[in-house]
Amino acid sequence: MAASYTLIEGQAEAIKGQLITLGGDHGIALPLLRALRRKIGAPLGLVHFDAHVDTWPDSFGQPYGHGSCFYHAVEEGLVDPRRMIQIGIRSPVQNEVMDWTLARGITVLSGQDVHAQGPAAVAETVRRVIGAGPAYLSFDIDALDPAFAPGTGTPEIGGLATWQAQAIIRALKGIDWRGMDMVEVLPAFDHAEITALAAATLVWEYLALLGSSDAA
Amino acid sequence: MAASYTLIEGQAEAIKGQLITLGGDHGIALPLLRALRRKIGAPLGLVHFDAHVDTWPDSFGQPYGHGSCFYHAVEEGLVDPRRMIQIGIRSPVQNEVMDWTLARGITVLSGQDVHAQGPAAVAETVRRVIGAGPAYLSFDIDALDPAFAPGTGTPEIGGLATWQAQAIIRALKGIDWRGMDMVEVLPAFDHAEITALAAATLVWEYLALLGSSDAA
Amino acid sequence: MAASYTLIEGQAEAIKGQLITLGGDHGIALPLLRALRRKIGAPLGLVHFDAHVDTWPDSFGQPYGHGSCFYHAVEEGLVDPRRMIQIGIRSPVQNEVMDWTLARGITVLSGQDVHAQGPAAVAETVRRVIGAGPAYLSFDIDALDPAFAPGTGTPEIGGLATWQAQAIIRALKGIDWRGMDMVEVLPAFDHAEITALAAATLVWEYLALLGSSDAA
Amino acid sequence: MAASYTLIEGQAEAIKGQLITLGGDHGIALPLLRALRRKIGAPLGLVHFDAHVDTWPDSFGQPYGHGSCFYHAVEEGLVDPRRMIQIGIRSPVQNEVMDWTLARGITVLSGQDVHAQGPAAVAETVRRVIGAGPAYLSFDIDALDPAFAPGTGTPEIGGLATWQAQAIIRALKGIDWRGMDMVEVLPAFDHAEITALAAATLVWEYLALLGSSDAA
Amino acid sequence: MAASYTLIEGQAEAIKGQLITLGGDHGIALPLLRALRRKIGAPLGLVHFDAHVDTWPDSFGQPYGHGSCFYHAVEEGLVDPRRMIQIGIRSPVQNEVMDWTLARGITVLSGQDVHAQGPAAVAETVRRVIGAGPAYLSFDIDALDPAFAPGTGTPEIGGLATWQAQAIIRALKGIDWRGMDMVEVLPAFDHAEITALAAATLVWEYLALLGSSDAA
Amino acid sequence: MAASYTLIEGQAEAIKGQLITLGGDHGIALPLLRALRRKIGAPLGLVHFDAHVDTWPDSFGQPYGHGSCFYHAVEEGLVDPRRMIQIGIRSPVQNEVMDWTLARGITVLSGQDVHAQGPAAVAETVRRVIGAGPAYLSFDIDALDPAFAPGTGTPEIGGLATWQAQAIIRALKGIDWRGMDMVEVLPAFDHAEITALAAATLVWEYLALLGSSDAA
Repeated sequence: MAASYTLIEGQAEAIKGQLITLGGDHGIALPLLRALRRKIGAPLGLVHFDAHVDTWPDSFGQPYGHGSCFYHAVEEGLVDPRRMIQIGIRSPVQNEVMDWTLARGITVLSGQDVHAQGPAAVAETVRRVIGAGPAYLSFDIDALDPAFAPGTGTPEIGGLATWQAQAIIRALKGIDWRGMDMVEVLPAFDHAEITALAAATLVWEYLALLGSSDAA
Repeated sequence: MAASYTLIEGQAEAIKGQLITLGGDHGIALPLLRALRRKIGAPLGLVHFDAHVDTWPDSFGQPYGHGSCFYHAVEEGLVDPRRMIQIGIRSPVQNEVMDWTLARGITVLSGQDVHAQGPAAVAETVRRVIGAGPAYLSFDIDALDPAFAPGTGTPEIGGLATWQAQAIIRALKGIDWRGMDMVEVLPAFDHAEITALAAATLVWEYLALLGSSDAA
Repeated sequence: MAASYTLIEGQAEAIKGQLITLGGDHGIALPLLRALRRKIGAPLGLVHFDAHVDTWPDSFGQPYGHGSCFYHAVEEGLVDPRRMIQIGIRSPVQNEVMDWTLARGITVLSGQDVHAQGPAAVAETVRRVIGAGPAYLSFDIDALDPAFAPGTGTPEIGGLATWQAQAIIRALKGIDWRGMDMVEVLPAFDHAEITALAAATLVWEYLALLGSSDAA
Repeated sequence: MAASYTLIEGQAEAIKGQLITLGGDHGIALPLLRALRRKIGAPLGLVHFDAHVDTWPDSFGQPYGHGSCFYHAVEEGLVDPRRMIQIGIRSPVQNEVMDWTLARGITVLSGQDVHAQGPAAVAETVRRVIGAGPAYLSFDIDALDPAFAPGTGTPEIGGLATWQAQAIIRALKGIDWRGMDMVEVLPAFDHAEITALAAATLVWEYLALLGSSDAA
Repeated sequence: MAASYTLIEGQAEAIKGQLITLGGDHGIALPLLRALRRKIGAPLGLVHFDAHVDTWPDSFGQPYGHGSCFYHAVEEGLVDPRRMIQIGIRSPVQNEVMDWTLARGITVLSGQDVHAQGPAAVAETVRRVIGAGPAYLSFDIDALDPAFAPGTGTPEIGGLATWQAQAIIRALKGIDWRGMDMVEVLPAFDHAEITALAAATLVWEYLALLGSSDAA
Repeated sequence: MAASYTLIEGQAEAIKGQLITLGGDHGIALPLLRALRRKIGAPLGLVHFDAHVDTWPDSFGQPYGHGSCFYHAVEEGLVDPRRMIQIGIRSPVQNEVMDWTLARGITVLSGQDVHAQGPAAVAETVRRVIGAGPAYLSFDIDALDPAFAPGTGTPEIGGLATWQAQAIIRALKGIDWRGMDMVEVLPAFDHAEITALAAATLVWEYLALLGSSDAA
């Protein structure tokens, strides 16, 4: 794992301009953020779509893995937790993990919050949390509901529809975006490639966002 | 059929505390309610999620079956129809069956009603209908839309999203719950186990409800 | 292609009463509208559910095909573009194609428009656009989201839920309906026949609409 | 059921030339054979591909159904049991049903028999059993293994590969064929339409057989 | 893991007669064999259907897991390697692991061996290897080809057809069977439940074997 | 198309050593063979696994496409037709196309030929046809049966099992291999990635062949 992370970090550092990555395990976000943090010289804001907080101090006993990437990202100062927002959270989580998350100042919107508030209000909250500094988008495909994205390894019901994810992202023009990852797509569970299509289209929405914000 | 029902009723009667059952054909609700009615000594309130009313006097010519369970439950005095609500109904139904259902005082919310009113309003109606007495939750997985629960035998489009079912159930704390069934899951039609996940999570929501209502 | 279109047109012309067709490629709408235009003697209003505008002047270099049917329908005077509305549009489209579409007076509601406005408002717009003359409903199944209709050849995320399509169609009683097509259902991509069920049920909704409007 | 059978029989009788039918429940073979028997004026030989003998005296308590069609066909004198062969049989069957089947003189080849003997030897046996009189081919798609034909309602493992079925049928030129049915295809269990493709291709093989035998 | 294994071993020990288990991870075979070894008082013969040898000394760095169960079973003296045969092996394996396996006296038949020799010859070899002592059948569903059993976690092409597995097992009457496991069925990868059907039917074949050998 | 072919040809020419390509449309074989022909300076032998001959003079009216690649490869002198063998052919084909194919000296083995002769005899024929000169392997995944490879666009029943393809390829050591393509994999029709696994493993078999032939 450590060797993989070093390899990913090195390759990420060599990329100029936007750092856009397709996963793979959410664990790759940690070396990607390490590379980006070094290039930028300051912690990043983080917009994190996911069914899971991924701020466990370890992943089933291993320090590094797909459930602990943002614990380490915060602890290592890669991400500014007060400029970090999680969207679509709905898996069970131990109290101490949620307490740690909230105590760091991370904003957490559950799946039910998104359904109750609607995409426009969610996007407004994102803009307020992220503010003016450099920012990164980490999209775990399981933020979407299994009906819209069955091709993933730890699905949770009650998730976002694709139109909601699109509406939120489209409303995030003008943020100082530096990179994006799309992770946890698992083709063997997919059917008719609808998960792959969702993942590809959401990356395309991010790219369109860059074009628009350049023009603004 | 009669032999199966007697067997189910006997086993149900032997269970102490909450009576929670995973089906199987919706027909099992009848012997389950017979057992519960005898233990409680009074008719139950019923929250019934389904695409179909299941108050036909017979199922394709057979008196007992998955389409007639609540006709018999009402006729046998197991359920108080004025404390009974159906949520998600949308299959075609003959006028005389719907007339019988409404004439008994049963409250019927269609799938379109749920979409138009939202889960909070639906839950409010449920609480008003059920009131203070003992109550039972019968969840036919085809209350959900086929996009969210393809693994079932008589699907109907226009159904509930999983987040709506979750939101309604979570708002039903404090009701005097005595049991629940989750029925009509058909794994051969499922893919990537998303229907099984929906069914299991909704039972888990019910269990969480009990914990919360104990604490209340 | 030309031979197929001639064949379809001839068969369509021989049908009395409502012209209802199950496709097949969206290209069949062109000969169907040619037949209907001749029988009626005037351009039709058109309610067009689709992810794609289908007003390209050609389909990948071929003049006739599933992406150009409504370009020709307008150019040939089969449809009155000021009485034409497209619902669910969300695929990328070149500026000149969209400019042509809007310049003809066609009303275009995107998928996001439907989600933001809700079915009742959409139906209100449809009634205003279509008005009193004869009208035709062309339903490309990819207007629905891939979660609800995976069985189609050019899916786009962010589409309509089946309940939204049902709610819009049910609110269109009293329009002077002359025919309907349901197209682009591709069984090989379907699972558990949920796309086939959606297609069949939406045709059934159209039929129910006719009954109701007769009674009105 | 009786009404359906009468309807099917009447329509079958009106068809001139080869009687080729796509099902549907295997029960349709009974009215089809009744119609054919009357037209021909003599009992038919029967080549019956299936995982099940379908010679139960009833189907789960109903006299007519998909498990009893050939019991009735023999009892009614529609089929000559000494000119009847079953290929691919492998579901469990009660001793009295198998005894009845064999006592009538029906030849039964199990799935394992086909695998052990190979298609050429099977075809040789078929030709010997059927002989010179008029004959009918009834193909229950579950004769194929679920790997090759998952889209059916009562699958049994250990079945035929499609190439084996093709090789057997191709070796049956010159038999006095009068009709064929292809039954028990259940699209909701299919994936990528491989079962539909198998069914369609096997009917095509039968049609090619007719052409060849005409030429012979 | 250790705790799970202790739990499984204890429950297995409490079972009288045949020890039949449905998994789950192949790792469960180790505690099952520990329990059986203690009850019998002597090492067992082992008929092992699998795509993988499962004699790695560890599973990805963990001593116990689904790839090392038979390494430990041999090392702990639970199984007599000279009375052990593996059928269907075809995944890549390091030379030192294969050397260890063969050096212990284990007989290994690859998937290609089964296809080339046929089930009757394979069964003959099994009978010769197992001989007269007590024996156990461990069936990893991935011994079957992914066409016949897609519902498993580490599939390998070139595997057995279900009819081959059935033919081999049916030819193993009279062996002194003490138990069986059916492992590595993964429903989320299955479709139309064909893998589940294969697994259930093969257990049923084993049960039929017991009946037959009793009668012998 | 012409532009794509030029692009592919240029990239192929820049590759040193073995030319291994994953498709994509079978049409890519034409520019790949053009590049290889120029590098080698002589026509290649061709081992062609496919359900279709792909020697139509055009593809549905277009001169270049997935059905005409080997017509052009022969006509352009890229492939020596007397050193070309097709394995698994079974789609319908017009007499004039088959006549052209055989008249050029191409050896054609149908799917039924492979089943009847077995892999060892097929490999022997391949070795005899290819002989000593440089050779290329073109594997259309639809050579496999849809049960083993549902993820492809023009499936035909009666195809090869994966074990047969593996057995044939493994017996082709020592041929002067220069490159391979694996084409027509269509993930949207796949399930549980079994087609992708088959394609990847067969390429791996080819790579293993190179290692072995180097050592020879």
